[in-house]
Amino acid sequence: MSYGTSVTVRTPFAETVSRVRKALAGQGFGVLTEIDVTATLRGKLGEQMEDYVILGACSPPFAHRALGIDRGVGLLLPCNVVVRAVGDSTLVEALDPQVMVTLTGRPELEPIADEVARRLSNALAEV
Amino acid sequence: MSYGTSVTVRTPFAETVSRVRKALAGQGFGVLTEIDVTATLRGKLGEQMEDYVILGACSPPFAHRALGIDRGVGLLLPCNVVVRAVGDSTLVEALDPQVMVTLTGRPELEPIADEVARRLSNALAEV
Repeated sequence: MSYGTSVTVRTPFAETVSRVRKALAGQGFGVLTEIDVTATLRGKLGEQMEDYVILGACSPPFAHRALGIDRGVGLLLPCNVVVRAVGDSTLVEALDPQVMVTLTGRPELEPIADEVARRLSNALAEV
Repeated sequence: MSYGTSVTVRTPFAETVSRVRKALAGQGFGVLTEIDVTATLRGKLGEQMEDYVILGACSPPFAHRALGIDRGVGLLLPCNVVVRAVGDSTLVEALDPQVMVTLTGRPELEPIADEVARRLSNALAEV
């Protein structure tokens, strides 16, 4: 089962995070959460890893519509966008919003997932 | 497909959120993110809804092990725990960590998902 889509760019990690935020905003997504995985694992476990951040992207109008259909869909929100270093490149991955339809078994969520997927795809293309 | 587990309690919303945080901590989960869905939808859209919060729970050792198996698994982290008002009760729902195994198709993640599920279940039982 496919659960994400990705692009690889040559821009450095920090610059890419900034570009991703801007591209998401341009498509109507706010970034509601940010987890610096690298810092968390270093701080909690003393483990070293490459730059790795998880951004929680959310479009309030679409979230509102989805919650109106299935109140439990908050378990699958926000839509994660991971930015991480891979060698000299930076990988940007977004969760496929169709996961929301598959896991809930609510086909009424499909038009919302389609539109969110289209916007996430636009954002990734702009990075 | 089942993707979550839940308990309903009679304690008020705010007290339940506090109890959930304590129960999660007791099982080794930090709450890395918190989205006040009610406030977000009111602030962004002017929409009213019941108390609804999404907590992002994460156990750093398990997250570290999972990332060592599949670097892309950050798309499915942290594990969401939703607390929301339902009439006079409060519902606490946790995402089923097996979703991580199903979506990635990586059976090596199964022992981690099993242990995280056990701990989440313990936390919910304590609320």
